[in-house]
Amino acid sequence: MKALVYHGPGKCSLEDRQQPAIIDPTDAIVRVTRTTICGTDLHILKGDVPTCEPGRILGHEGVGVIHEAGSAVSSFKPGDHVLISCISSCGKCEYCRRGMYSHCATGGWILGNRIDGTQAEYVRIPHADTSLYPIMPNADEDALVMLSDILPTGFECGVLNGKVEPGSTVAIVGAGPIGLAALLTAQFYSPARIMMIDRDTNRLEMAHRFGATDCIDVGAVDPQAAVMKLTEGVGADCVIEAVGVPTTFELCEALVAPGGTIANIGVHGIKADIHLERLWDRNIAITTRLVDTVSTPMLLKTVRSGRLDPKQLITHRFKLEEIGAAYDTFGRAADTHALKVLIET
Amino acid sequence: MKALVYHGPGKCSLEDRQQPAIIDPTDAIVRVTRTTICGTDLHILKGDVPTCEPGRILGHEGVGVIHEAGSAVSSFKPGDHVLISCISSCGKCEYCRRGMYSHCATGGWILGNRIDGTQAEYVRIPHADTSLYPIMPNADEDALVMLSDILPTGFECGVLNGKVEPGSTVAIVGAGPIGLAALLTAQFYSPARIMMIDRDTNRLEMAHRFGATDCIDVGAVDPQAAVMKLTEGVGADCVIEAVGVPTTFELCEALVAPGGTIANIGVHGIKADIHLERLWDRNIAITTRLVDTVSTPMLLKTVRSGRLDPKQLITHRFKLEEIGAAYDTFGRAADTHALKVLIET
Repeated sequence: MKALVYHGPGKCSLEDRQQPAIIDPTDAIVRVTRTTICGTDLHILKGDVPTCEPGRILGHEGVGVIHEAGSAVSSFKPGDHVLISCISSCGKCEYCRRGMYSHCATGGWILGNRIDGTQAEYVRIPHADTSLYPIMPNADEDALVMLSDILPTGFECGVLNGKVEPGSTVAIVGAGPIGLAALLTAQFYSPARIMMIDRDTNRLEMAHRFGATDCIDVGAVDPQAAVMKLTEGVGADCVIEAVGVPTTFELCEALVAPGGTIANIGVHGIKADIHLERLWDRNIAITTRLVDTVSTPMLLKTVRSGRLDPKQLITHRFKLEEIGAAYDTFGRAADTHALKVLIET
Repeated sequence: MKALVYHGPGKCSLEDRQQPAIIDPTDAIVRVTRTTICGTDLHILKGDVPTCEPGRILGHEGVGVIHEAGSAVSSFKPGDHVLISCISSCGKCEYCRRGMYSHCATGGWILGNRIDGTQAEYVRIPHADTSLYPIMPNADEDALVMLSDILPTGFECGVLNGKVEPGSTVAIVGAGPIGLAALLTAQFYSPARIMMIDRDTNRLEMAHRFGATDCIDVGAVDPQAAVMKLTEGVGADCVIEAVGVPTTFELCEALVAPGGTIANIGVHGIKADIHLERLWDRNIAITTRLVDTVSTPMLLKTVRSGRLDPKQLITHRFKLEEIGAAYDTFGRAADTHALKVLIET
């Protein structure tokens, strides 16, 4: 089969690889029909993710069809259409019992990291019963592949952790795909305002179209002054960090209202400053989270009911043979205006 | 009347001052029978609290008897015994309606800070109906004065924000009065372990007597290694910061388990490092809070029922005339082994 293989920092190539086989009876082999590229894949290519070793097939997002199910798999049979979660979970360990699938003792984010991933024609999914979700054969697969990672990540790490409520004020720092996923799902809860903060005018235009009430261009205005003006000097009840660098995290600290929450989604490579001399008495919370994908069934319902349209995030389409071009387009997003690039296999 | 008056950094003196009078109809004048000294009073004396101006009577803790009630006060009449909350709250503004009394638009921590306080024979209490709590005439006033600030602070900012649960593991960094108040109230929820971390062996001995399951002397052992050993490598579900300096806050970051909470109580004067490169995917929360004293009625019940004995925290007693000696004793706690010093007026 064709598969995109990582060969160390800066190097990957589309190659012929042996089709994966069942290892444990709880595995399933899925024929991948759609996959996509995540910002984390770019981190791997930069050499930022030491758990991902050369030789690994990349990718942790996808939809497909069950090709083979291990003897212990009871929820799926060959021919079933499935959504692949970026998080594999045994469903049995202490973390899984607490709904913290991201920290599953034998799972978590392993696909395209510790084991071979989804940017291939076939993928082995461990713990298939609790790591795959059934979808209808006629489902819109383009939309659903956005539910492997990006939508649950924006929703769980940003919106749920940030406690977005009807009438509340939300500031989202970073209008990339993850920030936009938070923007789309924050609207489930009817906040009064969603202020989108970025320096890319194209992304801010997208944010406006996706429902942001206010778009703040940090190249043109002081974001703290802008948010304070829009919130009558109080700050935002929920501040979502969707970038992952110290400057943006520290901006979040300046934007949060007393009693509010900073919900971090960003993948950080270095430490930041926490201004406790200003925050200690402000009754705030700062949360971090690796997505658990506990909300996947709920998000599937919102797509089916038409409340959520994740296809809006897809800006480019490629065939698996063109995955090199897909990475290039996604990696130069400022120029190409790419959000999510869809790959048909 | 006699009152302890602040005269700028390093200076305060017991003086004759005019007895306070009703200003607003919602005020009450309370004859103070017991008060105490808080670590925050020492901060004021160091000049760390610019809102507290020279000429201010210090103190925000106390019990007493209603001397005079304003015309709009409906819950109290002269002769009623009361507990004074360190937080004044109007009960009407948006923050008060949310239970965030600490951020009351016309209250919050104002006693002994923006208005005259309780280290005096009489004190004016604004918003009396919602800032005082009725106590029985025969109540143990020594115990109850600990409920003005220190017990609700340890409980709300530490135990409630830290989500202490039956069977959970708790690490408290700092065995001073606030850390010990958290230790006492954490036991309401039957955690599996309460690990107390300090470098003062006397305070650790107190902690052991007060119910800590493990006392970790940072002068003798590496606290991170000790907590990891006691929690089988996982870390503590709830980590309570009860010191207020960068080193202790950063220690908390190293102690927290995936899915856990760092509940900050410490009053911080400078920023700290937040190691997001290690924490971003650990599903943790960091909380800050100025005590709201929403739990005061509940804590009063626990004292009445005998479940909580706050008198254990009192190590020294003084008369109001000796308040200079009381400050000296409290300020040199490492030598005097003082926890809370009680002052009878």
